[in-house]
Amino acid sequence: MNFSTIRYIIGWILRFESFFMLLPALVGFLYQEKAGFAYLFVAMACFLLSYLLTAKKPASKELYLKDGFIVVALGWIVMSLFGALPFTLSGDIPSYVDALFEAVSGFTTTGASILADVESISHASLIWRSFSHWIGGMGVFVFIMAVLPLFGGSTMNMMKAESTGPSVDKLVPRVKNTAKILYGIYIFMTILQTVILVLLDMPLFEAMCTSFGTTGTGGFGFKNDSFASFSPAIQLTVAVFMILSGVNYSMYFLILRRKIKQAFSLEEVWWYFGIIGVATLLIFMKIKDLYPTLEEGLRHSIFQVGAIITSTGYATTDYNLWPPFASMCLIVLMFIGACAGSTGGGIKVSRIIILAKSIKKEISSIAHPQEVSKIRLNGHPVSHEVIRSTNVFLSIYLLLLIGTTLLISIDGQNFTTNFTAVVATLNNTGPGLDMVGPTGNFGFFSNLSKLVLIFNMLAGRLELFPILLLLFPVSYRKH
Amino acid sequence: MNFSTIRYIIGWILRFESFFMLLPALVGFLYQEKAGFAYLFVAMACFLLSYLLTAKKPASKELYLKDGFIVVALGWIVMSLFGALPFTLSGDIPSYVDALFEAVSGFTTTGASILADVESISHASLIWRSFSHWIGGMGVFVFIMAVLPLFGGSTMNMMKAESTGPSVDKLVPRVKNTAKILYGIYIFMTILQTVILVLLDMPLFEAMCTSFGTTGTGGFGFKNDSFASFSPAIQLTVAVFMILSGVNYSMYFLILRRKIKQAFSLEEVWWYFGIIGVATLLIFMKIKDLYPTLEEGLRHSIFQVGAIITSTGYATTDYNLWPPFASMCLIVLMFIGACAGSTGGGIKVSRIIILAKSIKKEISSIAHPQEVSKIRLNGHPVSHEVIRSTNVFLSIYLLLLIGTTLLISIDGQNFTTNFTAVVATLNNTGPGLDMVGPTGNFGFFSNLSKLVLIFNMLAGRLELFPILLLLFPVSYRKH
Repeated sequence: MNFSTIRYIIGWILRFESFFMLLPALVGFLYQEKAGFAYLFVAMACFLLSYLLTAKKPASKELYLKDGFIVVALGWIVMSLFGALPFTLSGDIPSYVDALFEAVSGFTTTGASILADVESISHASLIWRSFSHWIGGMGVFVFIMAVLPLFGGSTMNMMKAESTGPSVDKLVPRVKNTAKILYGIYIFMTILQTVILVLLDMPLFEAMCTSFGTTGTGGFGFKNDSFASFSPAIQLTVAVFMILSGVNYSMYFLILRRKIKQAFSLEEVWWYFGIIGVATLLIFMKIKDLYPTLEEGLRHSIFQVGAIITSTGYATTDYNLWPPFASMCLIVLMFIGACAGSTGGGIKVSRIIILAKSIKKEISSIAHPQEVSKIRLNGHPVSHEVIRSTNVFLSIYLLLLIGTTLLISIDGQNFTTNFTAVVATLNNTGPGLDMVGPTGNFGFFSNLSKLVLIFNMLAGRLELFPILLLLFPVSYRKH
Repeated sequence: MNFSTIRYIIGWILRFESFFMLLPALVGFLYQEKAGFAYLFVAMACFLLSYLLTAKKPASKELYLKDGFIVVALGWIVMSLFGALPFTLSGDIPSYVDALFEAVSGFTTTGASILADVESISHASLIWRSFSHWIGGMGVFVFIMAVLPLFGGSTMNMMKAESTGPSVDKLVPRVKNTAKILYGIYIFMTILQTVILVLLDMPLFEAMCTSFGTTGTGGFGFKNDSFASFSPAIQLTVAVFMILSGVNYSMYFLILRRKIKQAFSLEEVWWYFGIIGVATLLIFMKIKDLYPTLEEGLRHSIFQVGAIITSTGYATTDYNLWPPFASMCLIVLMFIGACAGSTGGGIKVSRIIILAKSIKKEISSIAHPQEVSKIRLNGHPVSHEVIRSTNVFLSIYLLLLIGTTLLISIDGQNFTTNFTAVVATLNNTGPGLDMVGPTGNFGFFSNLSKLVLIFNMLAGRLELFPILLLLFPVSYRKH
C-alpha cells in the first residue's frame, strides 16, 4: 500500500472541498444567515488540514489498481465526514449521524433525506445539499484529474473506481483530457438548464439547486413537495434534463466530435430510451384515470420514469398512491438505473445488456454446444474480465440487497419500507415506497440503520468494489 | 431435435403417472369417496395415452443435452396437466387453472395452495397432493431411470436437468445405479418417518401425507392450521426430518459406503447446518417473549427455520405475526434454500458458496492481480463451466424475481404479498408473507397471475434452464 500517496491525495480532496464550501458560505452571507459562518469555518478547517497533509510530496506517484480503489473509497468517506459538519454546526441538522446521512446522500447523488421539513433549513445548507450532488455526480477525483497535473497514467485507476458502469473507456488517450471533456459537457448542461429555468420564471437560487440536482442525478428537493407545485413547463424541462443526464457521456463526446453516426449507434443509449418509452407508456395507461387531464397523467408518468431510472428521485406526485403495478414499474427502473458513463445510479443499462446477452449465450450453448460465440456490445467483443466482474457485481449486489434489508429490519418497520429503503439507497435513487416514499423521509430509522444505509449509498455510488476492498483484510496484505 | 425419443419418454412418464394415481384411487375407495373414481378414470386415460405414445420404439436412443433438458421440461408440464385433472373431475377444485396450480405446486414440492379450507376436500385428493410432492421431490425421471433400462449413457442429460444444484455427481459410475441408491435412501427416510409418526399416535393416513410432504420437501398440509395443532413430539420429529431431507444425498451415500470422514467433510453440509443454527438462534432471541415457554419459542424457531430453508413450508405458528426481523430471516432462508443434491428448493447452499468464493476471488484479484487462484469446493477445483452457469443462473433468477413480481402486481395486491408470493414460488417454498403467509392462500390471485406463478414453480424446481430452453426459439434450430 502506498500510504504517502494516499495521504497526499486525501489532502487534495480536502483542499477542493474547502473551495467548494465557499459557495454555501457565500449564499449564507447573501441571505444574512448565521449558517454561512459554519460553512466558512469548516472550509478553513479543511484547508488547514489539507495544507498539513499535502505539505510533504509523496516519494512515489505510482498507484496500483488496489491503491486507486482504496484512495477513492477513503476520499469519499473523508469528504462526507467533513461535508456533514456544517449541517450540525449550523444547527440545521442537530444529530451528526443524520448530518452524515444527508451528506453521503448528497455526494452519492442519492437524494434520500432525513429532513421532514426541508423548507425550514438555511439557504446555505440547501445549496450545499444540492451542490454536493453536483460535486459527487461526475466525481471529485475526476474533477481533480481535470484541473491538476497530479499523477501520470496511474490516475486511470482512480477514474476506474469513481466512474459508473462496467468499464471505463478513455474518450481520448490522456486521462486528464478525458476528465476535462467530461466536466466541460457537465458544466454546459448545468448552465443551460439553469438559464432555461430562470427564463421559465424560477428564482435563480432555486434554478441553481434544481440544475445541480438534475445534472448530478441527485434529487434533494428544496420544497417539501419536491416538484409538485411547479409549473408544467418547469416540470417538463426538469424531466428532459434528468433523462439527458442519464445518457452515457460518450454519446455527447461523439456528437462534439461530429461522429454523429457513431453517437447514435450506441446500443446502451437505444436500450435506455427504449426502456424509458415502454415504462412511460405502461405507467401512463395505469394511472391516466387518476388525474384530471391526460396531459397531467402523461407528464407525471414521464417525470417519474425519468426521475427514477436516472436515480434522481425528484417527484411531481405521490406515486405511493399509484396502483401497485405502476409503483412496481418504478422499482424495476430503480434496479435498472441509467447508462454507464453517466452520473446516474442503479445496476446500469450496459450491465443489464451484458447479463441479458450472457443468458442468451448460455441457453444457446446448451442447445448448440459445438458453436462458439462472443458477447458483443456496440459491435465490439466484451472482454472475459468485464463479464466476470459484471457477474461478481451482481452477486455482491444481491448479497447487499438481502443482507442490509435484514439488518435494517431490526428496527421493526414493515417489509415494503425496509426493502425499498435499501433499493433506493443502494441504487442511489432517493425515495422508495411506503414510509420512505416521495412524501416520507428516512429520519425515523435508528442510527444503526442509518449507518447501514450510508454504507449502501457509498457502496452503490462507487459500484461496490472500492468500498468492499476497503473492508477486506486481503487488501492490506503485503505484495 | 429427437422427436420420436421425446414422444417415447413422455409416454413412459404418463405410464408411471397412471400407476402413481392408483394410490389416491385406492384411498378414495377405502374412504368410500366418489373422488376415487376420478383418479381411477384419469389413471386409465393416462395408461391408454401412454400405450399409444410408446407403441413404436424410437429409432435412435441418443439424447443430446438439449433434448434431455427439453424432454424433462415437457415431461413435467404434461405430468402436471394430467395430475390436475382429477382435482377438477372430483369436484374438489372446480377451476382447472386452480387445479393446475395445485398440481404444479405439488410436483414441484412448493406446497403453495389455492385452497382456503383444505379439510373439506376428499382423502383421495389429500393423499394425491402429498404424494405428488414425493413423486416430484427426487424426480420422476430419476425414478424411471432407476427402474427401467430405457437408455444408455445419455440418460445423464435428463438427470442433469431434473436434479438440484449446480452440478450432478454420479455417485457410482452407472447412472441407473445412482438413481437406485438415491431412491433407496429416499424410500427408507419416508418409511422411517411414517413409522415414528404412527408411534407418536398420528393416524396412518396423516403420517403418510406428512412423510411424503417432508421427504419431498413439499409442504401441503392436510389441516387448515398446518402443523400448529400437533403435539410437540410430532412437531420436532417433522422438524428433524425436514432438515435431514435438505441435506445433500451424497452425504448419506458416503455414510452407507462407510466413508464417514468424507461424509462429514462436505463443505456444503457444514454451511447448511451452520446457517440453520445461526438463523434459529437469531429468530429465537427475537420471538422468545411471544410464547409462554422458552421451549415453545425454540420449537417454533427450529421448525420454521427447517421448514423454510428446506423449502418445505409447513408451519407450527403464524410467522406473519413475528417481528419484521424474524420474518425477514425466513425470507433470507427462502433465497438460500437447501443443499444441492437434496429434494429442497431455493438457490442452494453450494451455489451460495460458489458465489461467495467468486466475490472473495474477485476482491483478491483487484488487491493482488499477479496472484492466480482457483475456486475450490470440498477441496476440488470448481470448473469454469460450473462457475459461469452459476452466474447465469443468478442473472436469470434475479430477472424472473423482478419480472414476475411486476407481472403479478397487475392484480393490485400490495408489494409484500406480490414479492413474497414470487419468492415463495420461485424457490418452491410455499407460503410467503402477508396475504400469502402461512394462514393465507394463493386463491385470490387472477388466472394470469396463477399462470405466472405456475411458471415460476416449474422454473424453480427445474432450476431455470430446462424451462427457458423450452421457450427460446434457438432450441428448435437445426444443428
